Amino acid sequence: MTNRPNVLWIMADQLRFDYLSCYGHPHLHTPHIDALAKRGVQFTSARVQSPVCGPSRMSAYTGRYPRSHGSTWNGIPLRVGEPTLGDHLREVGAKAVLVGKTHMVADQHGLAWLGIDPDSEIGVRVSQCGFGAFERDDGLHPDSARQNWSAYDDYLVSHGFSSANPWGDFANSGLDEDGDLLSGWLLKNSRLKANVPEEHSETAYLTDRAIEFMKSEMDSDTPWVCHLSYIKPHWPYIVPAPYHDMYDESHVVDPIRNAAERDTDHPLMSAYLNARVCKSFARDEVRTHVIPAYMGLIKQLDDNIGRLFAWMDDNGLSENTIIVMSSDHGDYMGDHWMGDKDFYHEMAVKVPLIVADPRPLADGTRGAKCDALVEMIDLAPTFMTAMGCAPKPHVIEGRDLTPLLHGTDGFSRRYTISEHDYSWSEMARVLNVPQEDAHTTMIFDGRYKFIRCEGFDPIMFDLDADPQELNDIGRSSLPNHADARSRLEAAMLQWATRHHARITATPKVWGGISNASNVGILIGYWDAVDYEADVGKPFDTLKPVGRPN
Amino acid sequence: MTNRPNVLWIMADQLRFDYLSCYGHPHLHTPHIDALAKRGVQFTSARVQSPVCGPSRMSAYTGRYPRSHGSTWNGIPLRVGEPTLGDHLREVGAKAVLVGKTHMVADQHGLAWLGIDPDSEIGVRVSQCGFGAFERDDGLHPDSARQNWSAYDDYLVSHGFSSANPWGDFANSGLDEDGDLLSGWLLKNSRLKANVPEEHSETAYLTDRAIEFMKSEMDSDTPWVCHLSYIKPHWPYIVPAPYHDMYDESHVVDPIRNAAERDTDHPLMSAYLNARVCKSFARDEVRTHVIPAYMGLIKQLDDNIGRLFAWMDDNGLSENTIIVMSSDHGDYMGDHWMGDKDFYHEMAVKVPLIVADPRPLADGTRGAKCDALVEMIDLAPTFMTAMGCAPKPHVIEGRDLTPLLHGTDGFSRRYTISEHDYSWSEMARVLNVPQEDAHTTMIFDGRYKFIRCEGFDPIMFDLDADPQELNDIGRSSLPNHADARSRLEAAMLQWATRHHARITATPKVWGGISNASNVGILIGYWDAVDYEADVGKPFDTLKPVGRPN
Repeated sequence: MTNRPNVLWIMADQLRFDYLSCYGHPHLHTPHIDALAKRGVQFTSARVQSPVCGPSRMSAYTGRYPRSHGSTWNGIPLRVGEPTLGDHLREVGAKAVLVGKTHMVADQHGLAWLGIDPDSEIGVRVSQCGFGAFERDDGLHPDSARQNWSAYDDYLVSHGFSSANPWGDFANSGLDEDGDLLSGWLLKNSRLKANVPEEHSETAYLTDRAIEFMKSEMDSDTPWVCHLSYIKPHWPYIVPAPYHDMYDESHVVDPIRNAAERDTDHPLMSAYLNARVCKSFARDEVRTHVIPAYMGLIKQLDDNIGRLFAWMDDNGLSENTIIVMSSDHGDYMGDHWMGDKDFYHEMAVKVPLIVADPRPLADGTRGAKCDALVEMIDLAPTFMTAMGCAPKPHVIEGRDLTPLLHGTDGFSRRYTISEHDYSWSEMARVLNVPQEDAHTTMIFDGRYKFIRCEGFDPIMFDLDADPQELNDIGRSSLPNHADARSRLEAAMLQWATRHHARITATPKVWGGISNASNVGILIGYWDAVDYEADVGKPFDTLKPVGRPN
Repeated sequence: MTNRPNVLWIMADQLRFDYLSCYGHPHLHTPHIDALAKRGVQFTSARVQSPVCGPSRMSAYTGRYPRSHGSTWNGIPLRVGEPTLGDHLREVGAKAVLVGKTHMVADQHGLAWLGIDPDSEIGVRVSQCGFGAFERDDGLHPDSARQNWSAYDDYLVSHGFSSANPWGDFANSGLDEDGDLLSGWLLKNSRLKANVPEEHSETAYLTDRAIEFMKSEMDSDTPWVCHLSYIKPHWPYIVPAPYHDMYDESHVVDPIRNAAERDTDHPLMSAYLNARVCKSFARDEVRTHVIPAYMGLIKQLDDNIGRLFAWMDDNGLSENTIIVMSSDHGDYMGDHWMGDKDFYHEMAVKVPLIVADPRPLADGTRGAKCDALVEMIDLAPTFMTAMGCAPKPHVIEGRDLTPLLHGTDGFSRRYTISEHDYSWSEMARVLNVPQEDAHTTMIFDGRYKFIRCEGFDPIMFDLDADPQELNDIGRSSLPNHADARSRLEAAMLQWATRHHARITATPKVWGGISNASNVGILIGYWDAVDYEADVGKPFDTLKPVGRPN
């Protein structure tokens, strides 16, 4: 077991792929994440299975698409009985531990119906999508039904930052000249410095907690996957000094958008553009207030990651720990006249992904950039392989990245798929789309990105001809566009009709199913000669097992 | 509660729709089932969701398609955590009870992993696809890994039919002139009389057990759904006297087939026709031996059902019991050169379905024939409605048949869908199709039956022009055929991309998700004015809940 590496799986929330210097940002320098890229493989075509926190994470934690695990929107619980990475690792004597955010909501109905005590070890585990919870922090407003009070609130109080809502009043608010509290939830306050010192911010706190977890494992032989899941740079967009004024208007890159997009006659796209968050981020003052804060949050994150890596180096953990840097989705930031995420343009669905494997087998790929089509669901099977878990094709839909990390053959994917459930949204209300129809599905082949919109015309982009995705060719009559649409629609049907729910078909179950003739279930034999010719033994050797003891 | 009817849900196994006199068989008279049709609605276009026992039944017991519940082949367990009819009925104080066959295999891996004791009440229930088991009998060979010894074996022994394998040696064997045992598993023995008196046959035994169940409920106020699930006329094809010689070659109808079918160049169809069971049933002597026995088994079933109905009349149960006659799939019996089931021609996928509702609301439809496209998954929501269970659109994919039973509007379906997993089969081995690709999907719109065959050309029949399905137009270049194919393929994609796994999205969960702004999750508000304009209350009224007690 001791030759199995540990895995530190870092996930930032709402981090765009292009807001890191190793992915080309002109003003934002992230040397510590860049250094990780030099030690590992930097994936340049990694996409999430849903452009929103909850379903994207449940896909990452299960290795399965949203249509398979069923948690299609934030707050829809992962069902009791859906297998997770943590479940697979436990079977081989490894553990998966959470430090930070999962966005999971417990399936209380399923727990009650199956008689599982929510406070039992199994009850807690299935309520945390399979992780053991060293630290659970979903970084949402304490008023949220999802989380009323977190360990980080206790931490703030214990350090003198005491109020009915420390997370809101200190970590996510600023002060005006008169010392009045201004909420970070309001975009106009984004440029204020957060009302908490950096060393007590949520990003620093979660970094400290990850170090404490690794310390607690120093004397253990059990290999671990530590999911260090940061809240930031997710909204509320507000950051402590000195990061709050490191960037200004001069560092805000121009938005990716044109007038034709704003004038689209596609009903679903129009509804998106008319939603509040898109109308806000289409305004220049929102971009110039929010983007500098967003950049500061990322710079702070990079510094904390540097601190974490230095501690791991000093404590001999780096040479036996696979380190992964990832994000659950991006952020429009006004591109395409949109805000937040929830659709499939590159800045929303494409994510940074760096995997640094310290083992000698990976020496040949250090510093390499890989443009293979990879998905977030590929991490779970990659970690399973590192921990010695046998493949589970009846459960896992992702593909093991190990060949790409070790420079060998064996990885292939022709299409990347992502899904979105908008039945909760302003768009569904405005368009009066019923819950069962309020969904879209994206399939991307490396050139064409085809987006099926139930009840509406498709949307498509040609990323070779139009890398900025400014020209929707979903209704184009050009033959090559029509051909691409039908080819991608056929590929989507192939994917959608797969038996993704057949998770109980274990090798043991298949063994019991095969060759029924040998256990006396005889179909279509005319006589004993038929039987012997087929099974290779005389019919009369078929003996009943008789009454069990 | 007492105004809720009970439901007697009779299911025969492998009963073709056209081997009942009310469905037009020229020689086989089934007066008792015909009488039920006169009391209720006879559905003339009912199809199963998979043309094989296990997945068809799991769909019937869950109200969900095989792609949704995941039990895609016999012996693949229904996962722990898949909701069933029994689970829904228990929530409203009704019960679902099994007398006979389900073909369910327990999800032992899921039970262990979720810490559920297989012998606990919940453990037993989830191992019986949600039914309480009054009598479990899967009618398989005692050598089968699925069942080693049944209560029916004990019954036979207690009545003097004692051996190591009473089910095989008495109920499913015959004797030659010398008194030697000849197995009913071998088709050449089908015309022998079974080595058991009719009153101790499995069909009579299960009828008696259903009566015993109803007696046991006489003093109970809890409404019930009793699933009386007969083994026969499923193979082994052998029947007790006097039914074994009621029919002979003169009663065997001509096979539905032509030479062009046998010469098909479709690789998958060729593989089917070359499989042992199809080659056997393509032989005339197999049909002339098996079909008379199959007819005798159905005649015996009808007589037992008549005995059951008479007892219910005498005991006042008929006026408050909805009675359903159904089957899990048909049997090719040599039609189209095929045997057993496992594909989508009408005699395999179309089933008899009769629903007799004694309530006055159904008086207007007694004796009616209904040609609406209905599916086996429609029974679960129909029973739920009868028991006062609220609709569960997040779980149930079937459609409530009550409007059709009561002659009101509200039922509609444009397409019937069925699926098949052949990864276990000779066809998959011969064609070397990997497990993940070895599946087909049928969609039928009332005229065109389109069958998608992963990796192969589609197969299609026009039932208006070709009601016997002798002419495969899956590759026809006629424009109307090409149009029908693309229309049905698009409908299949719409069905396949639905969020069928979103079973945890209860009304309570949706309530928690909607209107995040009111619980303090604020997305895209520039300032307090923005917030008040949207939410309708001042921003400063947004109060934290503070530390929980």
